[in-house]
Amino acid sequence: MTAPENGTYKLELSVRDYECDLQGVVNNANYQHYLEHARHEFLISKGVSFAGLHDEGIDLIVTKVEIDYKYPLRSRDKFLVTVGLERHGNVRLVFNQDIFRLPDAKHIIHARVTGASTRNGRPVPPGKLVEQLGLG
Amino acid sequence: MTAPENGTYKLELSVRDYECDLQGVVNNANYQHYLEHARHEFLISKGVSFAGLHDEGIDLIVTKVEIDYKYPLRSRDKFLVTVGLERHGNVRLVFNQDIFRLPDAKHIIHARVTGASTRNGRPVPPGKLVEQLGLG
Amino acid sequence: MTAPENGTYKLELSVRDYECDLQGVVNNANYQHYLEHARHEFLISKGVSFAGLHDEGIDLIVTKVEIDYKYPLRSRDKFLVTVGLERHGNVRLVFNQDIFRLPDAKHIIHARVTGASTRNGRPVPPGKLVEQLGLG
Amino acid sequence: MTAPENGTYKLELSVRDYECDLQGVVNNANYQHYLEHARHEFLISKGVSFAGLHDEGIDLIVTKVEIDYKYPLRSRDKFLVTVGLERHGNVRLVFNQDIFRLPDAKHIIHARVTGASTRNGRPVPPGKLVEQLGLG
Repeated sequence: MTAPENGTYKLELSVRDYECDLQGVVNNANYQHYLEHARHEFLISKGVSFAGLHDEGIDLIVTKVEIDYKYPLRSRDKFLVTVGLERHGNVRLVFNQDIFRLPDAKHIIHARVTGASTRNGRPVPPGKLVEQLGLG
Repeated sequence: MTAPENGTYKLELSVRDYECDLQGVVNNANYQHYLEHARHEFLISKGVSFAGLHDEGIDLIVTKVEIDYKYPLRSRDKFLVTVGLERHGNVRLVFNQDIFRLPDAKHIIHARVTGASTRNGRPVPPGKLVEQLGLG
Repeated sequence: MTAPENGTYKLELSVRDYECDLQGVVNNANYQHYLEHARHEFLISKGVSFAGLHDEGIDLIVTKVEIDYKYPLRSRDKFLVTVGLERHGNVRLVFNQDIFRLPDAKHIIHARVTGASTRNGRPVPPGKLVEQLGLG
Repeated sequence: MTAPENGTYKLELSVRDYECDLQGVVNNANYQHYLEHARHEFLISKGVSFAGLHDEGIDLIVTKVEIDYKYPLRSRDKFLVTVGLERHGNVRLVFNQDIFRLPDAKHIIHARVTGASTRNGRPVPPGKLVEQLGLG
């Protein structure tokens, strides 16, 4: 496993019973919920408001998700979701995310989530957003 | 069991694996999804459009849900969701809903869902809606 | 509103964006997830283990849910879920649950959830469970 | 867009309101539910039973998911989920899946889902499964 680096955003959560499926493990789709929730909390921690962006006509959308499922989480497991961010070209942002079980830091998931900023549905440079996120 | 009466709206669905939880049965909350989906399909079958109502300033909201869980559904079970509707007083509509497993008509759930029509968050008589739904 | 009484179990949560639907409020079914999660946490706080019960052949099931929806929660709202418990007759337990928005204690939901203990699918007195829960 | 080839498994579904989120489109995680449901229906159409495999000690797990989000689905959209399958090496199966909106065949999603067969948590050749799926 790779422990999260200093400076990476981290969110601690735990598995709720209703997130597990017939196999007794968290259903694959629910990890996307964990990852999305951590990204939104990360953006808010940086002062980025979806509502504020939307009022300026900017929307942030996910264009690609790649997830490596390494080990399953089970009922009541505690875990850490991390969020790292880098800029790709003019309009893309790539979120590198991992999930580690607690307290043993077992590596559960590695994910790479690509986002784009759009205005009226067309890709635009993230502009001010990049400054707010310290990527300028 | 009580088979659905003639004239009652019916929607046939089947259980998807991700709707089941650790106990191998459909998670209790998912029955509300089934019931809601059947109500929306019923309203649309009557020509009632949420968007259209919303444009006239009318919103339909659920104020009370009562569900009797009689028997659980399992992975891949087929089932029927029924919707009956009656008017209560000036502003309330009550949906009587049942779920029956197919093909044996085992009674799975009886539910009573109370809705109200609101304009700007305040209860108003359902008016035209009542006519469209044949309750006038 | 009625603030939670002393001695009532309380769990603090917040709304995640994916729990909201088209109307911009938490989807009705998701409140059942919040209520279920709080009940499970409550039982665990009392030393009641589903796995342990199951090994003794006892299962706890929900037989009835009644929910009054008083006011909707929105994205990122913080809220308190409470759990009170009383015994009804020989085989039934009734959970009285409320959800209050934080910090203003706005009353969001009142729910009454009836559970039964079963052995091999047949209702049995909750026995030891009642002692553990302090209802004896 | 690329229409599904002859011989590809196809499942027709439609968006339910509760699957949409604040943005008025299907929440990203719910596409994984659609994809999973179509894979399970595909396997069952080939006579592959999870329960039967499990009794022989074989479990099928997802090890990697890659999803390109091309265009969002909205409330009540009808759509087609396709499933193609190829073998990769000794223990991996790769499902190529697409989602097309109906009736205009707008390309919504392309996904590549990697699965492995395991016995007691260790990767094993899919063996009989490969024959059943016509990949031998």
